Amino acid sequence: MISSHNPRIPAQSPIVQEVLSGDFRAVARLITLVENGAPEAVPYLRELFPQTGRSLSIGITGAPGAGKSTLVDGLAGYFRDREKKVGIIAVDPTSPFTGGAILGDRIRMQSRFLDSGTYIRSMATRGNLGGLARATADVLLILDAAGFNIVLIETVGVGQAEVEIARTAEVTLVLLVPGMGDDVQTLKAGIMEIGDIFVINKADHAGVDRIEAEVKSGLAMSNRPDKWMPLVVKTVATEGKGIAECAQAIESWRLFQEDAHLRREKVYQIQKERLLALVSSEVQRNLLRNGRMASMLDDFARQVGDRRMDPFSAAESLLAAWERRGKTVDGENSEGREP
Amino acid sequence: MISSHNPRIPAQSPIVQEVLSGDFRAVARLITLVENGAPEAVPYLRELFPQTGRSLSIGITGAPGAGKSTLVDGLAGYFRDREKKVGIIAVDPTSPFTGGAILGDRIRMQSRFLDSGTYIRSMATRGNLGGLARATADVLLILDAAGFNIVLIETVGVGQAEVEIARTAEVTLVLLVPGMGDDVQTLKAGIMEIGDIFVINKADHAGVDRIEAEVKSGLAMSNRPDKWMPLVVKTVATEGKGIAECAQAIESWRLFQEDAHLRREKVYQIQKERLLALVSSEVQRNLLRNGRMASMLDDFARQVGDRRMDPFSAAESLLAAWERRGKTVDGENSEGREP
Repeated sequence: MISSHNPRIPAQSPIVQEVLSGDFRAVARLITLVENGAPEAVPYLRELFPQTGRSLSIGITGAPGAGKSTLVDGLAGYFRDREKKVGIIAVDPTSPFTGGAILGDRIRMQSRFLDSGTYIRSMATRGNLGGLARATADVLLILDAAGFNIVLIETVGVGQAEVEIARTAEVTLVLLVPGMGDDVQTLKAGIMEIGDIFVINKADHAGVDRIEAEVKSGLAMSNRPDKWMPLVVKTVATEGKGIAECAQAIESWRLFQEDAHLRREKVYQIQKERLLALVSSEVQRNLLRNGRMASMLDDFARQVGDRRMDPFSAAESLLAAWERRGKTVDGENSEGREP
Repeated sequence: MISSHNPRIPAQSPIVQEVLSGDFRAVARLITLVENGAPEAVPYLRELFPQTGRSLSIGITGAPGAGKSTLVDGLAGYFRDREKKVGIIAVDPTSPFTGGAILGDRIRMQSRFLDSGTYIRSMATRGNLGGLARATADVLLILDAAGFNIVLIETVGVGQAEVEIARTAEVTLVLLVPGMGDDVQTLKAGIMEIGDIFVINKADHAGVDRIEAEVKSGLAMSNRPDKWMPLVVKTVATEGKGIAECAQAIESWRLFQEDAHLRREKVYQIQKERLLALVSSEVQRNLLRNGRMASMLDDFARQVGDRRMDPFSAAESLLAAWERRGKTVDGENSEGREP
């Protein structure tokens, strides 16, 4: 099957052609490879990469119960009504042991599966080898290549990994609700500076004025290098109220970025973080895959556990051994490299 | 000033002596160095390391509003009453831009500052260079060396970084509350398998039987390699109810681990994860600190941003250049190594 979707493209892997033609099943298959950390995914991602850079990625983060899924659903509908293809990545924390995905959000938003212009995917991740942030960046790449104009990334929970994921999106919406407890106020402070747009959801609840005032006073102290003044939007996502205003805020932000020639700088920054993450996950993967390095790691972990060696010396020796490994001729040289 | 605290120790850095003697101000100063990612901290941590391995680390995680701080406060009181020295590490998500710490928990539990047997510290982290998990492990090392018998690690929020932090503790308590919404039930599934003990807090609220049944049915399917059957404890932390049962559950777990000779295996596993994290944060740090590597990184990020190079090839070239860097003689060889 030859894709006629993009005439510039020479002969490619079948799955790459299918993804570029927007085939949902091919997209799903490639995402599964990425989630499993399968090295086979990398050559495909490489092939897809030149066809990316056309979608707008929107991160949506906030505490559990703030209504992120409902807002995502509302925004997806808004953009679909305007003939945009919409991808949704729902990032769920998942078991580090079984890697089992969680179906909650998937079921809730299932109705959109029937719409051929919307693709929704819950993300699982395994272990800590680069983890969620890396996998999310790869999925974004796939959806971008598959022709999705808008990719909404919903991160469940608020924490460091979530903050990093928010930074992989071009624009970040932070969702707040009135009447949050102490804990959540504490969290709020942590995400105050990653928000380009603040959405106060459940704006029909008591306390909306108070939280709005708090957010605005927080923002008054902000001193962003890009001089953008984050917008505050009120929504009642369950009733569809404020969704259009929210989409318009995203558009204002986009125009500001383009006017100020900031979009490229933001993209460079995102790619720099991504390269750092790729390099270190590659190092970890090599350590675990290379037989000699893996047994050295096990041996050192035991010595550290028994207090016969400190972890810093152990890490240094591992790094030195890893740097030396390319110089030995024992058949392991080429292990752990991408094909 | 010569420390008479531990006669085995030869002449040491003054700050190391002070930490070993349990001096709070020295502990605080060293933790600040660790939080700032200051390389000067490493030699001190190395010196302290042989004096560690005596404290029990207890991770407490759960969704915002579940009552983690109150439970931590209650457990701290319980162990203080039994003449244990208690350290508390409250891990807050924090701004990736300013690195500002958040004072919420610190203020709430301030009363314990007056007690010389309790040390409490809110953690901030900067950027993603190993981040929270690495800094938390270092703080644990410091508190262990300073003679704290029990270290309670409270992670705010539920997410991947939090899961990783829970894995740095020897025993992990997962806090749940009755009547959680959909989102939180989703989260719960993600942390179901990291809990050694499940604490159902606010057990005087409606819905306690339902959540208890859900947890138990979830656990019935668990198939842990260590054969430990996680305990379920009900608490009303605000009234101090169930705190003793919670502490006894921790003790049961500890005895089980020791009887089954599992503690060492757990410690090895924790150290193995730590070594992987140390190696990759060291690689990232070297990339950013080495002048030539840092400009290569910037250049590649721009090329990737402009789609002139794909991120995987860029990461590979960076890694290859980094491996080669030791072989050049341009004055940069020794950069980026620990002293």
